[in-house]
Amino acid sequence: MITVPEAKNIINSISFHRRTVKKLLDNAINHTLSTDIHAPIMLPNFSQSAMDGYALHLAPNLKKYLVIDEVQAGSSKNPILQKGEAVRIFTGAAIPSSANAVIMQEKTSVNGKSLTLDYIPPVGKNIRYAGEQIQKGALALGKGTLLTPAAIGFLASLGIETVEVYEKPTVALLITGNELIQRGQSLKHGQIYESNGSMLMGALRQTGFEPSIIQIVPDEYQKTKELLQTQLEAHDFVLVSGGISVGDYDFVGKALLELQTEQIFYKIRQKPGKPMFFGRKGTAFVFALPGNPASALSCYYQYVLTALKRAAGEDNFSLKTIFLPLEKEYIKKGNRAHFLKAKLTAQGVKILHKQSSAMLHSFAKADAMVFIPEEQMQTDTGQLVKVYLLP
Amino acid sequence: MITVPEAKNIINSISFHRRTVKKLLDNAINHTLSTDIHAPIMLPNFSQSAMDGYALHLAPNLKKYLVIDEVQAGSSKNPILQKGEAVRIFTGAAIPSSANAVIMQEKTSVNGKSLTLDYIPPVGKNIRYAGEQIQKGALALGKGTLLTPAAIGFLASLGIETVEVYEKPTVALLITGNELIQRGQSLKHGQIYESNGSMLMGALRQTGFEPSIIQIVPDEYQKTKELLQTQLEAHDFVLVSGGISVGDYDFVGKALLELQTEQIFYKIRQKPGKPMFFGRKGTAFVFALPGNPASALSCYYQYVLTALKRAAGEDNFSLKTIFLPLEKEYIKKGNRAHFLKAKLTAQGVKILHKQSSAMLHSFAKADAMVFIPEEQMQTDTGQLVKVYLLP
Repeated sequence: MITVPEAKNIINSISFHRRTVKKLLDNAINHTLSTDIHAPIMLPNFSQSAMDGYALHLAPNLKKYLVIDEVQAGSSKNPILQKGEAVRIFTGAAIPSSANAVIMQEKTSVNGKSLTLDYIPPVGKNIRYAGEQIQKGALALGKGTLLTPAAIGFLASLGIETVEVYEKPTVALLITGNELIQRGQSLKHGQIYESNGSMLMGALRQTGFEPSIIQIVPDEYQKTKELLQTQLEAHDFVLVSGGISVGDYDFVGKALLELQTEQIFYKIRQKPGKPMFFGRKGTAFVFALPGNPASALSCYYQYVLTALKRAAGEDNFSLKTIFLPLEKEYIKKGNRAHFLKAKLTAQGVKILHKQSSAMLHSFAKADAMVFIPEEQMQTDTGQLVKVYLLP
Repeated sequence: MITVPEAKNIINSISFHRRTVKKLLDNAINHTLSTDIHAPIMLPNFSQSAMDGYALHLAPNLKKYLVIDEVQAGSSKNPILQKGEAVRIFTGAAIPSSANAVIMQEKTSVNGKSLTLDYIPPVGKNIRYAGEQIQKGALALGKGTLLTPAAIGFLASLGIETVEVYEKPTVALLITGNELIQRGQSLKHGQIYESNGSMLMGALRQTGFEPSIIQIVPDEYQKTKELLQTQLEAHDFVLVSGGISVGDYDFVGKALLELQTEQIFYKIRQKPGKPMFFGRKGTAFVFALPGNPASALSCYYQYVLTALKRAAGEDNFSLKTIFLPLEKEYIKKGNRAHFLKAKLTAQGVKILHKQSSAMLHSFAKADAMVFIPEEQMQTDTGQLVKVYLLP
């Protein structure tokens, strides 16, 4: 049994197997760069106007200019201005090389070709100089950068069409428990509807992954073992729900052992989710999650997601974490760390009722999890607590 | 010209046109319920064991019990226990109706059929009683609930197969600017690579929407007008990038006017993104965003996304907002409100360099935006600022 910080440190220190793939930039959102990208051109590629107005060849103390031409955005025109001359210009249009300032049109009055300035702008005013954003050949975005919409836009503006990124890891989802019945059938006494498969598939999709297979594992030792072996050979990650506890019919642990899966850790001093197993076989990793739905989802957010994101190239991934005042005192029972379903409020954060690991009702209303460390038995109203924001 | 809070209030007060659709629960992640859902069964549907251990029919002061049977998870067995008798039981298995407590196996010793307890558990210990999570017929999740993984899991555990949700609105993306060149072609002087299309498509996808069309608008008035008309008739939202400024070649504003689009507002006292236009024609809405990429993306996160989410049923959507201490003093120039690209740090939040609305480089490294209100000219080191977390 290890502590929460120990479990997190272990996951953060593993070098997960990664594959790279070339993708069209437009299909690379939320992927991570596997190479540095250097700017193939400078940005802007030419000195451009930041305003709709007039480009000027400034003459000392002069307020009246002669408008000799016009440069639209996209035009390759480069009219030659003498001192005291101006051209009509638009946002994004190329500044004539002989102009040295732009005045916005709202600060001028025009009469035919005669332009009168409200004030004399300084040299360089409203000009975005060539190379001001980035020089040709400079590092544009480094290996390991997550491609957000802004990063995609930035690379697009450099003319980049394809990028090399880390592939998302492949994931198999195995669900155990012979009390589980598929929806649509009627329940007999002692049976419940299977829900962890749908829940974990939702969690994977919501966080950028797609399970390639979701399979109900029959409660028989030999079949459990065969299925685990097949999926560990075919996938980067196998997530198992249930079957890892001490019960006589929990076959997953025994099967993983016999398949010579290396145990990285088993059991974390936390509530919910104590009996979580994390192991490795070759380049594949297996998380065996508790069968209680709230425990399974809590373990997904706190551990599995970090491993998947790291495998996808996000070295520094963690759920967004903030410290907020607790709305109402919380007395922790027992000496495990607690992850509590919670909701952000205007004043801070509120721990929700009904924290049982078997219950999803409060989780369905939560947008955050509050972390209470092992040693902290009493947390007072208004005390700052660590809050993980749910995706 | 209106203020930032005024613009946000207007968007938050509009009743966007919504359509509902039936979806399989497994395909409904990140959709919003359009009806209340009442529990078709109670949860748990039978009293069940919360532990692997022994179900007891307690007898006063007794520590030795006779094990008469076993109940596995999923079994419909209901053995009858006399006082002083026990059955082996597993997590999730149905508690025999004559048992009144469960003791976890770690707190017992067993010799054949003789069970010795380490302590005498109170009545109800380790039993999840039928209906304890929710009663049959009670409100499970209300209209307007966002279907998170936990909500999906909860509905799945109730046996629900399909849900009625709000459809995501349809979106057309129109890009203007005759300085824009498609990637793969070589740039002439004065031309730049089109990037707002890729950036906004990424932003839409990252936040749960999919543009049905992305089209470059030729810089001709008549074609601009025709395209706007066609797309306003075919979509719930039309996002236009560029063409709404005061330049003589900005046709979008003129075309929208002639198409009798109702102006809801035009221009917000903010930087970046001042010249944003928001209008309505019939049930369709149009956002004309500034052509500068950082301005366009800032407006997307601050305004467009809220409108799209509200149209998709999320009445109370906003970007996650927190207050954090500013790492280094910020002096605001001018009297507009500022949205600043920023990064969360261990100590608070840091405003990034190069805030120009034409530059995406700093946005590509940002994970948050800091909001500085109009009237706040100086913000001190350590002062709390409003921080919007980027999706």
